[in-house]
Amino acid sequence: MATRNVKIVEVGPRDGLQNEATMISTEIKVELIERLVNAGLRNVESASFVSPRWVPQMGDASAVMRGITQQPDIVYSALVPNLKGFEAALEVGVKEIAIFSAASEAFCQKNTNCSIAESLNRFESIMQMAQANDVKVRGYVSTVLGCPYQGDVDVSAVVDVSKHLYQMGCYEISLGDTIGVGTAYKVKQLIEQVEKAVPMHNIGVHFHDSYAQALTNIYAALEMGVNVIDSSVAGLGGCPYAKGASGNVATEDVVYLLNGLGIESGVDLQELVGIGHWICDKLGKTNQSRVGQAMLQKS
Amino acid sequence: MATRNVKIVEVGPRDGLQNEATMISTEIKVELIERLVNAGLRNVESASFVSPRWVPQMGDASAVMRGITQQPDIVYSALVPNLKGFEAALEVGVKEIAIFSAASEAFCQKNTNCSIAESLNRFESIMQMAQANDVKVRGYVSTVLGCPYQGDVDVSAVVDVSKHLYQMGCYEISLGDTIGVGTAYKVKQLIEQVEKAVPMHNIGVHFHDSYAQALTNIYAALEMGVNVIDSSVAGLGGCPYAKGASGNVATEDVVYLLNGLGIESGVDLQELVGIGHWICDKLGKTNQSRVGQAMLQKS
Repeated sequence: MATRNVKIVEVGPRDGLQNEATMISTEIKVELIERLVNAGLRNVESASFVSPRWVPQMGDASAVMRGITQQPDIVYSALVPNLKGFEAALEVGVKEIAIFSAASEAFCQKNTNCSIAESLNRFESIMQMAQANDVKVRGYVSTVLGCPYQGDVDVSAVVDVSKHLYQMGCYEISLGDTIGVGTAYKVKQLIEQVEKAVPMHNIGVHFHDSYAQALTNIYAALEMGVNVIDSSVAGLGGCPYAKGASGNVATEDVVYLLNGLGIESGVDLQELVGIGHWICDKLGKTNQSRVGQAMLQKS
Repeated sequence: MATRNVKIVEVGPRDGLQNEATMISTEIKVELIERLVNAGLRNVESASFVSPRWVPQMGDASAVMRGITQQPDIVYSALVPNLKGFEAALEVGVKEIAIFSAASEAFCQKNTNCSIAESLNRFESIMQMAQANDVKVRGYVSTVLGCPYQGDVDVSAVVDVSKHLYQMGCYEISLGDTIGVGTAYKVKQLIEQVEKAVPMHNIGVHFHDSYAQALTNIYAALEMGVNVIDSSVAGLGGCPYAKGASGNVATEDVVYLLNGLGIESGVDLQELVGIGHWICDKLGKTNQSRVGQAMLQKS
């Protein structure tokens, strides 16, 4: 795997912070995003334009996006649930958005109050506006390896949604194990099938560590040829479906793995570890990155 | 991997407890061992016959071994550093012992005050007595993927020590990443070389999770054909070389992985999770198993 490159999509400022109980000021969010970029992360999901009634932690999305001093060639993306959110994102100059659906009907209903088919239909108008405004669109598929409400999820359902999002115009499909229940063999089976509908270089993986499997699942995905990994500095995020359990895989742990495999991510691990401890201090929580903990003790 | 079986060597009562600051009573140790066996673990490293001056946590090794109501076909092994320890183990009916050397000269000197060659020589008399008394011997090789004192460790050094221990009569060689720094690619390279000196079914892996890599490294080892995994309930143990960092990989997390891969370990995960929380209560520490944490929150 010597000269391979992997794209890390840092989701801490969005997926991470929106699942933390502690509210963080706009200034700190801006500083977090800028420090992550300075540490070498080139893709940072920076905000979510959802209703502050549902996700108060993301209520300052416009202010965060305005606050960032954007560096060239860095993607500061934002999650967008609907046309209203898209318009707000466009207003503050967002160049890449993410939309989300799910592979589980039960999850889609509970999370977005509509069926999977309806959720995909709702995105049609966003896709058109995005194309008209030269905005790239990333598609998330949730619950690809299990659902907190319905349990098992068919691989074919994941393939269908992934294919639909890709054909709609999403340039990248991020496969999310929302509750972290998947294991490596299932990951391989899943990617093998999704690849029939979406080219390998357009597939990303978004794994949660609730059952300690995230890094192993990432390794299995790398073995399959996947080159896009979502992760969250210090493992920010937690798991809303099992309070107290771990959430997003920590970016520090991913970078350590990639370094060991000789895969280039462009990230300065020492810098990143420092950022992880700094933001955990602000949140008053324990750093969930084992690399972060080990490197702190050593220094 | 459908009909494959894997042997888990549960090291919590020994490697785990000896690295915990809190002293545990003999009664609780006996109960821990018996509960682990009842949960389906067939190999439990139960005590260490080292000097209580060095490891006070293991000072009651003889009482622990005497206290256990031994089940048929279950291996209750004990670590033995020298002939004196072996004699003490023999006295209380231990049927399998473990001896340990290292792949790093610096580590061997610091840990056992002698060179690797000397450490191996010291074991000659133990091996003879073990054979004479029908006691099986397992060999640990420490620092196989890195050393806290010398840094890198040559693969050839690991191969040499493993080969020596195997040829001396150790029926199983457990490769220990003592400080948890290894990653999957290095694991594969290592096992590829060790297998030239020790048959695959005599190789075990003993990984620490200090840098979050343990489970991924186990997965890589499984891919190579390794069928023996050391682990510690609730991740008991910590890392003496980086205080606050994680130690032994948690047995719960290993069993969850194996279940997902369709590999049989014979362990009842729900039972095991209960034991993990129970012993952590006794120790007054946080359960290090993510599976343990997630399953507790769900129940």
